[in-house]
Amino acid sequence: MSGDAKDTAGGYGEFALIDRLRSILTSSAKGPDVIVGIGDDAAVIDAGGGKCWVISCDVQVQGTHFPAEGASGFSVGHKGLAVNISDVASMGARPLYALISLGVSDATPLAFLDEVYEGINAKAARWGIAVVGGNVTRTEGPFFIDVFIAGEVERENLLLRSGARVGDQILVTGNLGNSAAGLYLLTHPEVKIGFETNTVLTHAHLRPQPRVEEAQAISALRLATAMMDISDALTGDINHICEASGVGAVVWEHGLPISTPALNLASIVQIDPKEWALYGGEDYQLLLTAPLSAVPALQEAVRSVGGGTLSPVGEILSASEGLLLQTRSGRVPLEVKSWDHFREPEAES
Amino acid sequence: MSGDAKDTAGGYGEFALIDRLRSILTSSAKGPDVIVGIGDDAAVIDAGGGKCWVISCDVQVQGTHFPAEGASGFSVGHKGLAVNISDVASMGARPLYALISLGVSDATPLAFLDEVYEGINAKAARWGIAVVGGNVTRTEGPFFIDVFIAGEVERENLLLRSGARVGDQILVTGNLGNSAAGLYLLTHPEVKIGFETNTVLTHAHLRPQPRVEEAQAISALRLATAMMDISDALTGDINHICEASGVGAVVWEHGLPISTPALNLASIVQIDPKEWALYGGEDYQLLLTAPLSAVPALQEAVRSVGGGTLSPVGEILSASEGLLLQTRSGRVPLEVKSWDHFREPEAES
Repeated sequence: MSGDAKDTAGGYGEFALIDRLRSILTSSAKGPDVIVGIGDDAAVIDAGGGKCWVISCDVQVQGTHFPAEGASGFSVGHKGLAVNISDVASMGARPLYALISLGVSDATPLAFLDEVYEGINAKAARWGIAVVGGNVTRTEGPFFIDVFIAGEVERENLLLRSGARVGDQILVTGNLGNSAAGLYLLTHPEVKIGFETNTVLTHAHLRPQPRVEEAQAISALRLATAMMDISDALTGDINHICEASGVGAVVWEHGLPISTPALNLASIVQIDPKEWALYGGEDYQLLLTAPLSAVPALQEAVRSVGGGTLSPVGEILSASEGLLLQTRSGRVPLEVKSWDHFREPEAES
Repeated sequence: MSGDAKDTAGGYGEFALIDRLRSILTSSAKGPDVIVGIGDDAAVIDAGGGKCWVISCDVQVQGTHFPAEGASGFSVGHKGLAVNISDVASMGARPLYALISLGVSDATPLAFLDEVYEGINAKAARWGIAVVGGNVTRTEGPFFIDVFIAGEVERENLLLRSGARVGDQILVTGNLGNSAAGLYLLTHPEVKIGFETNTVLTHAHLRPQPRVEEAQAISALRLATAMMDISDALTGDINHICEASGVGAVVWEHGLPISTPALNLASIVQIDPKEWALYGGEDYQLLLTAPLSAVPALQEAVRSVGGGTLSPVGEILSASEGLLLQTRSGRVPLEVKSWDHFREPEAES
């Protein structure tokens, strides 16, 4: 990651910006009961009695995270809640409470706002969240929604990015790349494809389903060593786990779980679907590590809550081995790309 | 408040918009441990063991809450934190943890972002807050900062808007109208006034000091019946307490605590300073109610933490008596005005 000092945020990457701002918090970044501060999916606070609070917030901005024109308010509300629920759930916590901040311009249609709240209402009920507050503020810029989620987890069940150990299997729930394939369809309206395929893929992008029950089933077993959700992209998020755990990893190209709809679209538009799976981002599946011996029990736990597959996609190596991709022709360095709204995707290392 | 159905948010008032959106949350607004949901300064959750969590969020948008040009990043960071700390503290809770969401455009100067975080860092340390997370997102619109605060309070010490009883005194900490006077100075640069007066008033607007220690001293006594912070304006916030408590009130015009700097400025620019005190907003002082017999102990508690004065400014009446202003010439209906970023200030009732 380049360290070029430019004068505006536009020249800076999102992660570099976060690092820069975090370094300013010299006197306030830690408190006595803070188990995890800045740097994981969510912050973790010791609530006493063997319980932890897990808190997180994330903003979705019109024109950045969803199109300025034509986005359904229901999807925007759904996704605003979903991405935050995913952050809290992926640490093993039960999401419980939400606060909603909306930035609204004079020109924002009331019908759109109603739909946003209908999306929030439906999905909060689905995932067992109480919406307990928030605020509406005026902006002269694009609409935005910032959602804060608080959840609870037994301290023994808490899963962080930092627990991966050499020899652990790397596992993911469900399929990878559906969201990127859906974004491709949304940005290429000239592509004609069957209704069902279109719906599966675009919904994966617009209305992601956080793996709440699967995450709790996994954390309750206490067999996984690290967990997070896949928001940036598989490679970027494996890199986050490796950095936090002080390890390396190999990803098995042949093990990537890619759905039939994504394979169909890829073959029509002649794109390698592994690109979507490795670098696409926003799948909101769970990414975890666990010893090989624990894999069958974890797979059964995920199946038991109706969550489908839990696929091994690689193995944790020592830090000195770095990040590798196992292809048919051997191991090559793994290119780590994460989605960065301040820049076009590019290599980080 | 008119109920005209317009098509965009611009035609709607802030409070009407919040009511409209709240009404959509049919299935998700309450949970089993929710003591206070939408509608107070902050939400309150039963954490067990006689403790409550108090959580709140509030956004500051460039061009809406601070000027598009010339605002100091340090003040923006300070105020973003302060207004949220005030919401949590004014319920008697100890603010503990913060998450920060920033909306940043490509053109946002890095020096401004650094200053924002320097303001956050300094004030979080001052008020004992741990900044445990957050995110930076790209927007094509104006810069915004959304701050989430979590705090803790003993359930017995919790103070809501809803506890005021007929005959209670209405009390405020410190002075009223300094913030509005400061805003007047900031928007009328042609007015020449002494350096010290200018600093006191403009800082009251740009860098408000939440009354954290005073609020805790008051709540620990368990003598007050209701409390909130003055963010909208004295009249609007008394109205909030009256609505939540099912009571009326009389405000004593002669009892309004107005500072010497505000009186000086008012005399120079020939404005009635009571306008600033009654309708100005953003003073972030505490507004509370308590039986007459409790007033001396409360005043001593506020003095003991260095918080200065606690002034009686009125009395709670029955709901049928409505909202009144006691002037030299008798009681008149109290005009209730709150600051509304979607509209110019106007009468609500």
